[in-house]
Amino acid sequence: MEQYHPKRKRNEIIGEDEKKALIARGTYITIALCDDKVPYVVTMSYGYDRERSCLYFHCANKGDKIDFIQRNQNACGTIIKDNGYLETKCDHDYESLVIRGKMHIVNGLDEKKHGLQILLNHLEKDPKPIFERNIKSDKSYDSVTILRFDMESIIGKKHID
Amino acid sequence: MEQYHPKRKRNEIIGEDEKKALIARGTYITIALCDDKVPYVVTMSYGYDRERSCLYFHCANKGDKIDFIQRNQNACGTIIKDNGYLETKCDHDYESLVIRGKMHIVNGLDEKKHGLQILLNHLEKDPKPIFERNIKSDKSYDSVTILRFDMESIIGKKHID
Repeated sequence: MEQYHPKRKRNEIIGEDEKKALIARGTYITIALCDDKVPYVVTMSYGYDRERSCLYFHCANKGDKIDFIQRNQNACGTIIKDNGYLETKCDHDYESLVIRGKMHIVNGLDEKKHGLQILLNHLEKDPKPIFERNIKSDKSYDSVTILRFDMESIIGKKHID
Repeated sequence: MEQYHPKRKRNEIIGEDEKKALIARGTYITIALCDDKVPYVVTMSYGYDRERSCLYFHCANKGDKIDFIQRNQNACGTIIKDNGYLETKCDHDYESLVIRGKMHIVNGLDEKKHGLQILLNHLEKDPKPIFERNIKSDKSYDSVTILRFDMESIIGKKHID
């Protein structure tokens, strides 16, 4: 696997529907952040908001990624569908996206509710019991940070024989 | 999945052997690079050199990642063993490493040979036919760039119930 090779254009995923399907089917994304000369990588479960073309995440109120986002919102993430290494071919079967955009810390209660709903709808067939277990009232949202990744550009690649 | 949460220390992978086993078993790594305020993410197949505690990659002689590495060698990579989303639990079963270190473009022919050997030994049960197909003489190495990731620190996390 060596995904973003400028010379191998014929393995590019061009169709928007194919890209959206990969996002809809995935459950986690690995995101590069940075501050000055220091790169940082974090992998998070996400929920996909098709209408707003963004991803939502939840995390704790403190942590390295919050610090990085506060200093620099630029993000570059990858969603990979790994179909396995191709023995004897020195190649890897995969589909992947590289997504550039900006990370935001969601502040308003309404969008926090919306983001958590999107996240759980994406990940769970029946999100209701999880809400009931974890969200007793609006106060419950105080201890949850919701992040939003606004996707600005999406490049897709896949293995071809 | 929300891997590098500073408060959840009990899911940390502490043992060096367990970390090394994850590197030995994996086939690709997603690496964050950056230049100034611009993060970049790239996923590559790797070979693991235990003795030197580094990973080797091959790629084309030109491309975005070469440009990034030439401007800033700092790298932060992640190797993920994805055991799947845990339906109804709002959780993900995984083992993962976050590795910080420096990326190098390998110049000498001897180390290029060594790096490619490590890479193919890691990925293939029998690397010989691949060498025979692709490496006709030392000149063949002119069109292959070998990268080395010197691993300086490794943090591991895994899902626990």
